[in-house]
Amino acid sequence: MTDLKQALQEQADNVEDVLDGLLAVPEGPESRLVEAMRYSALGGGKRVRPFLVCASASLFGVSEDSALRVAAALEMVHCYSLIHDDLPAMDDDDLRRGRATCHIEYDEATAILAGDALLTRAFEVLADEDTHADPKVRCKLVSELAKASGMAGMVGGQMIDLLAESRDLDIAEITRLQRLKTGALIVFACKAGAILGKSQDVKLQALRNYGHDLGLAFQIADDLLDVEASVEETGKQVGKDADRGKATFVSLLGVERAREQAQILSDQACKHLDVFDRGTDLLRAMARYVVNRRS
Amino acid sequence: MTDLKQALQEQADNVEDVLDGLLAVPEGPESRLVEAMRYSALGGGKRVRPFLVCASASLFGVSEDSALRVAAALEMVHCYSLIHDDLPAMDDDDLRRGRATCHIEYDEATAILAGDALLTRAFEVLADEDTHADPKVRCKLVSELAKASGMAGMVGGQMIDLLAESRDLDIAEITRLQRLKTGALIVFACKAGAILGKSQDVKLQALRNYGHDLGLAFQIADDLLDVEASVEETGKQVGKDADRGKATFVSLLGVERAREQAQILSDQACKHLDVFDRGTDLLRAMARYVVNRRS
Repeated sequence: MTDLKQALQEQADNVEDVLDGLLAVPEGPESRLVEAMRYSALGGGKRVRPFLVCASASLFGVSEDSALRVAAALEMVHCYSLIHDDLPAMDDDDLRRGRATCHIEYDEATAILAGDALLTRAFEVLADEDTHADPKVRCKLVSELAKASGMAGMVGGQMIDLLAESRDLDIAEITRLQRLKTGALIVFACKAGAILGKSQDVKLQALRNYGHDLGLAFQIADDLLDVEASVEETGKQVGKDADRGKATFVSLLGVERAREQAQILSDQACKHLDVFDRGTDLLRAMARYVVNRRS
Repeated sequence: MTDLKQALQEQADNVEDVLDGLLAVPEGPESRLVEAMRYSALGGGKRVRPFLVCASASLFGVSEDSALRVAAALEMVHCYSLIHDDLPAMDDDDLRRGRATCHIEYDEATAILAGDALLTRAFEVLADEDTHADPKVRCKLVSELAKASGMAGMVGGQMIDLLAESRDLDIAEITRLQRLKTGALIVFACKAGAILGKSQDVKLQALRNYGHDLGLAFQIADDLLDVEASVEETGKQVGKDADRGKATFVSLLGVERAREQAQILSDQACKHLDVFDRGTDLLRAMARYVVNRRS
């Protein structure tokens, strides 16, 4: 676990540097926009998705520069989704990663635009030849990230989540919601290394399956934290889903069965990695970590 | 002029069909999201940008299918920007193209997500091999559209526009604002044909310059319409900039000089097209149309 913590920290530092370079503040009044983007993208978060990109890329001998640019682009998409999710018209959250959310620190209009610009910048970064020499690989990255984050992925999941406030979902529906809302980006993160490495289908598929199970385990663990942890530990408001009477894995399964389910998924995620001879220690440690973390 | 109107209508119908196919409504609760996307992207607008893509593509013998996919992707970006621009936290508009704006017809959260999903879908469409056989061309399209619509383009311009509400801009600042906010996408539309046709630099540059002057002429004409036309003619609220005391080309130059300036830019736009031997009739007609239109 110490190795994982160290690797997470190292990758977080690396991706921070790359994000810092990709979000340079321009001259002129639009500097406020880029400052808001930096406020939300820099200096926070566990950077789980960037870590997964780099860990999967290392399985295929992909250059660290390539992997970090994809990791940074993915983190921009993740951060844009948090900015828009926190808006008053959506989840109306004031606190994120222990700090004021973007629309509180700036204003709503700036937050909407900062989110829009982060999403757009992500695709610009992926399409740039600095990301990979082969334009086919770059197109595949754009295409897969767009699918994972768009109407048939993350944004579709956010829509279902909004509608879930007026209707209780059952376990199949919640599973689908989470697969779209949070799972799709995690799956992309895990596949990204294989795409960069132009890998054969069986390895890409194994990483996809790993990401799928990991993502669900991650979400169940999040629901458990929401009922068990404190604001200080998570850096965001807790108990919100329960307060709103929204169905979660925990409300549907109960704490014990939810915890068991997360553990089963974590074990299953590791099993998918058996197709690789070696190099999967960190990915396996991550699968254990997501179900045992306290924040 | 009749030819232009007919060509505009034909291209509008064609791009409508392509958008219809690219925004198929899925099963499940997220259908509401796609319906909101369709509400804002289909059945309205003059489709000036799609027309420019197709007209520039025709100069290079690009297949109509390719051009229409790029046109549709660009129109998705344009429509997303309108949805977010109309939000209460931004321009707070209730009326667009003679109909209720997206957040009025649906709700704010759905409108935010519909905009996000349209932007994302645009890049997915560009990166898809159906758009062009050469992945280098597809990457270039993604890259250029991202630049034109992101923090150094349209969204940067929207940020400057927001800040302009608290401070009067001079003519240089307004010109820069419009170059970013509306000009960048129009320039992309004009360049898109050359990118699809893998054209030499001089022709790409000519189309860029045409788009630059056309975009500014278009915006000045818009400002003129805002003080002169009626709600019935434009299908949106008029006189809003003046009511807010916001500086526009018209408030800074006066009606007469603004009209002259638009005409000069329109003529200049046509001049750039002289590098082409033939095939530019519709683009020239468009340059005349934008300064003479009544809506």
